[in-house]
Amino acid sequence: MRIDVVTIFPEYLAPLDLSLVGKARARGQLDVRLHELREFTHDIHRTVDDTPYGGGPGMVMKPEPWSAALDAVVASGPGEGAVPTLVVPTPSGRPFTQELAQQLAAEPWLAFAPARYEGIDRRVIEDAADRMPVVEVSIGDYVLAGGEVAVLVIVEAVARLLPGVLGNAESHQDDSFAPGRMADLLEGPVYTKPAEWRGREVPEVLLSGHHGKIARWRRERAFARTLAHRPDLVARWRREDMDKHDLKALADLGVWWDEASGRFLRTADFSE
Amino acid sequence: MRIDVVTIFPEYLAPLDLSLVGKARARGQLDVRLHELREFTHDIHRTVDDTPYGGGPGMVMKPEPWSAALDAVVASGPGEGAVPTLVVPTPSGRPFTQELAQQLAAEPWLAFAPARYEGIDRRVIEDAADRMPVVEVSIGDYVLAGGEVAVLVIVEAVARLLPGVLGNAESHQDDSFAPGRMADLLEGPVYTKPAEWRGREVPEVLLSGHHGKIARWRRERAFARTLAHRPDLVARWRREDMDKHDLKALADLGVWWDEASGRFLRTADFSE
Repeated sequence: MRIDVVTIFPEYLAPLDLSLVGKARARGQLDVRLHELREFTHDIHRTVDDTPYGGGPGMVMKPEPWSAALDAVVASGPGEGAVPTLVVPTPSGRPFTQELAQQLAAEPWLAFAPARYEGIDRRVIEDAADRMPVVEVSIGDYVLAGGEVAVLVIVEAVARLLPGVLGNAESHQDDSFAPGRMADLLEGPVYTKPAEWRGREVPEVLLSGHHGKIARWRRERAFARTLAHRPDLVARWRREDMDKHDLKALADLGVWWDEASGRFLRTADFSE
Repeated sequence: MRIDVVTIFPEYLAPLDLSLVGKARARGQLDVRLHELREFTHDIHRTVDDTPYGGGPGMVMKPEPWSAALDAVVASGPGEGAVPTLVVPTPSGRPFTQELAQQLAAEPWLAFAPARYEGIDRRVIEDAADRMPVVEVSIGDYVLAGGEVAVLVIVEAVARLLPGVLGNAESHQDDSFAPGRMADLLEGPVYTKPAEWRGREVPEVLLSGHHGKIARWRRERAFARTLAHRPDLVARWRREDMDKHDLKALADLGVWWDEASGRFLRTADFSE
């Protein structure tokens, strides 16, 4: 996969040299190219921002340097009409999810346009959208100082899904938010040696060697964790993903299947 | 504010030297201290992980180095019982939101425990929770290779809320997710000079100088943007935040107030 990033802070992207992403680059699985936005300005001050039309605080990123930079990225491609998918991190984008990470991981070429200040002049996005797929994404419901850290998040989430990048191909499957049996469930607690530490013991079932019981215990802890931290996910649970043991465990947690509404309900739904 | 981060990848936190966070550190508004987890190991291989009890793929971070590191962080504090609030990034945590960023920005001291592999032995979190406030947070519904980039996200979101860190104190108020009039609304498009660029014109109202009309136009674009990218937020809108102009604009977008259910409904709710 090829990744281009246009930014006024290329040094912010230094973590892409490290760890999983750095190793994928060293192995040639990822071709990451950073571009300094200010190199596409033509004034002595290398200006990338100006005041917003209509007034208000903050500055808006000017269209000319961005379009020149994106033109240069496209021109440096393999040709024959090849264009990247442009990813624009913004708090007003669609949510970045594991599903979107998987879709992006299937693309051969991503370009990122992380903004600073109040954002990029809207016309840059419209102009780009005439030439290439554009996806505006938000990594969460909070405000950052700039899009660079969102690029680090998205590249890391995407890179670990590329074939051969994670050492152990299995270790995707039990992730929180992984499709399949862990969909819409948070992972429960994990333990390693020693069996007793600071007076705290590892749950006995994990030492039992009984794989069926261990799998069941883990699933029940995932239910409890999800109810505690993400009750919003309960509405997404599907009846066909639950066996009779699951239904029993959920009943103990105050959750049952409601045939009339076609979804799982919590006792807490009635007291809130 | 003081911030301690314990990690096996201190170099991943290099962006904390840059931009807004770097400047806040240089001005003494932020005291950031990085701690290498492996310095709290005692074997020749500096081992921080081991196989999970109960089996399964991946490795779990051992309790001893983490607790030794957290003990050292607490011991390096101002004393008199002062402890940090421990922030543990994990996909199975509660969602990190702008509201939580504001709560954390009010704390004098935060410590971060970003995990790698399958996570930290659960007993470390329980042991810490006996001594200090602990909050396990997820920055979004996706899986990362490690918690370090989540630390960058949280520190950046928190730091920009500290008094005097953002140059222009006003520029918080129109942020997406800012409390008040923009609560649960995404920001609309922004524009700067030139008024015409690549055949695309800035919306005329923004050139009008009519502040009332501009504010109304921006609010309507925020409604439209939110409906397009985050229809889930509509359920959070409150009747008392909307004036008669808002209700008219929402009606044009297929959204109306439903007295019976006490919330705004979308035409699309009936076709989905």
